[in-house]
Amino acid sequence: MNEHEINKLIEDVRKRNPLIHHITNQVTMNDCANITLALGASPIMAMEVKEVQEVTSLSQALVLNMGMLSENTVEAMIISGKVANELNIPIVLDPVGVGVSKFRIHAVERLLENVKVSIIKGNQSEIKTLIGISTSFNGVDSSDDDSIENIADITIKLSNTLDLVVACTGKIDIVSFDNNAILIEGGNKMLRNITGAGCMLGSLMGSYAAITSKFGRAAEAGIISMNIAGEKAYKRMIEENRGSGSFKVFLLDEIYKLT
Amino acid sequence: MNEHEINKLIEDVRKRNPLIHHITNQVTMNDCANITLALGASPIMAMEVKEVQEVTSLSQALVLNMGMLSENTVEAMIISGKVANELNIPIVLDPVGVGVSKFRIHAVERLLENVKVSIIKGNQSEIKTLIGISTSFNGVDSSDDDSIENIADITIKLSNTLDLVVACTGKIDIVSFDNNAILIEGGNKMLRNITGAGCMLGSLMGSYAAITSKFGRAAEAGIISMNIAGEKAYKRMIEENRGSGSFKVFLLDEIYKLT
Amino acid sequence: MNEHEINKLIEDVRKRNPLIHHITNQVTMNDCANITLALGASPIMAMEVKEVQEVTSLSQALVLNMGMLSENTVEAMIISGKVANELNIPIVLDPVGVGVSKFRIHAVERLLENVKVSIIKGNQSEIKTLIGISTSFNGVDSSDDDSIENIADITIKLSNTLDLVVACTGKIDIVSFDNNAILIEGGNKMLRNITGAGCMLGSLMGSYAAITSKFGRAAEAGIISMNIAGEKAYKRMIEENRGSGSFKVFLLDEIYKLT
Repeated sequence: MNEHEINKLIEDVRKRNPLIHHITNQVTMNDCANITLALGASPIMAMEVKEVQEVTSLSQALVLNMGMLSENTVEAMIISGKVANELNIPIVLDPVGVGVSKFRIHAVERLLENVKVSIIKGNQSEIKTLIGISTSFNGVDSSDDDSIENIADITIKLSNTLDLVVACTGKIDIVSFDNNAILIEGGNKMLRNITGAGCMLGSLMGSYAAITSKFGRAAEAGIISMNIAGEKAYKRMIEENRGSGSFKVFLLDEIYKLT
Repeated sequence: MNEHEINKLIEDVRKRNPLIHHITNQVTMNDCANITLALGASPIMAMEVKEVQEVTSLSQALVLNMGMLSENTVEAMIISGKVANELNIPIVLDPVGVGVSKFRIHAVERLLENVKVSIIKGNQSEIKTLIGISTSFNGVDSSDDDSIENIADITIKLSNTLDLVVACTGKIDIVSFDNNAILIEGGNKMLRNITGAGCMLGSLMGSYAAITSKFGRAAEAGIISMNIAGEKAYKRMIEENRGSGSFKVFLLDEIYKLT
Repeated sequence: MNEHEINKLIEDVRKRNPLIHHITNQVTMNDCANITLALGASPIMAMEVKEVQEVTSLSQALVLNMGMLSENTVEAMIISGKVANELNIPIVLDPVGVGVSKFRIHAVERLLENVKVSIIKGNQSEIKTLIGISTSFNGVDSSDDDSIENIADITIKLSNTLDLVVACTGKIDIVSFDNNAILIEGGNKMLRNITGAGCMLGSLMGSYAAITSKFGRAAEAGIISMNIAGEKAYKRMIEENRGSGSFKVFLLDEIYKLT
């Protein structure tokens, strides 16, 4: 994906200002709303089962994030997912910490049985859990102990099995679709020192998916945007002798300033 | 409202440090708590129906915000609203995204039937929805496609119908009470590029309403405070070549520094 | 506690990267996750009763924070607390605003009957409420109207009665265990002007308790870390002419930069 293509997508988001319905976790929802606005889209967070159907039907993309999952949230995700499928609204799924409990695994299984997702975005632990590989788990973070070839194979396999775009984040990010894998380098290590970098990436992917039907491109554009902003934010953090608090603020700044 | 009057109100908030009970959405509640502290009041967030009655009765104002509304939250709002009415505690209502679902419309109707609100604060879409005018909706944001005269008329009409202060935010903000409308210019456009500016404005209005019985003044003071802080935050953002992440941080800084 | 000892603890947190399960309030959970990461530990927030048992059993410490308490949260806390006790996982309890309602008082009583806590951290109002002293209440903040001797006596008494570490925060912070009290000076007054300073302190204590069995040391290390970071953040805030928004960002920066 060249610079021209990504600039065109950013421009489109800003011109069309798509509405992105998030059913997401309370830990990072403020950051997700802010990064969606910073890119030029409009976030709406709604999780009450009595209204999610209407909210999704007004939206141009649906972002489902399984952090802090509850029984009610799973219900809401399935209702919204079905409406999105009927109306051809793209869906980004972030199976946060899916390996942490049977409850989350059952939830993602139930969701994938009932809803056709467009993009799954997860870290290596999450992607491996989805494909049934047992993995050592340390909370919602991932350990990168596999070779990049192994991870690429797993990512392609999940993409083929479920017939959708899979984005697997790590030291090198991988986007797989159509039996292929694109490797993307450049994610800054500071992104691991703040909460919500992964969740915010899901919001970026959702915003791009709202304005292009090429979901592989949307996933790639999300990662590249985050990587560019992460690099710039890190540079500023070092220059001004700051730390992780400022890094998050600068990250939002740099998404806002993307051109 | 002149500079002297608003300075007096700020001074009073800081001296009396009123407790502001928020029943509000999880997207922006951290920002609402921080802006309440920055102005000099004390926030308390409590939404469990088993305790909201006691919490409200300890408070000097009640802020009800309908973003991320749930069945339980509506219940809590009505319980707290009734107690506030009994104890003459002022109530600020922010009907966030009320047009987005039948659930939210029914909720606001039920609330207004059971509770006497002091100030309603909303954007143009929300105010129009409340008065029964169908409006094109884009999430929780508003489109300003009406003339300022039309919007002022609608704001006055809602104020007269419900017999309370109505604050309608937009490029020009309007505060209506006693069959009159005050127009306030100066809101910075960056306030639309962060989540929670509207919610935080509700917290400012609640903090002022806690220390003056002139609720029109409280609403006006909230808007003017936000506009002054927004202008200063924007100036700093441009000078330091920042973006929307820093703008929100600077906005809180400037509320804290108001004198 | 000398500089060498605290540096050793910080180093251990960063090397061992313990997983800290939080059952905590939605107002400040983003800040708690970020400060946990800034110190070098890994946060996981999970509150659904169907998964908290598994999540706790994967963790090295459990942080229970009673702000924004709900019926479900209390249930989750008791389930997780019992698992933590079985597996010898340390528990930090922050009884936020416990005096504000009967619901919160009953909740903390029920928790303490069922679960053996390692550290209780509260402000003076909260500690006094726990020991059955009626106290004037202003939201979740505390008023420091007692002499430091009185407060130290109360803190020691609670520590003796419950046989655990008690940390009582105020102008001077007190940590009591083994019938002793350590007084710690140096907390910056700006910590009262942001929401979540107390909650974040609980996360720091939990992160330290995860890597040392000397829970008194863990509590002390948490307070000292917060005080050092608070001082540095305040200095920067004044130098750069900022306010409370920047103070919170700088506070996270300084925890991240601790060595």
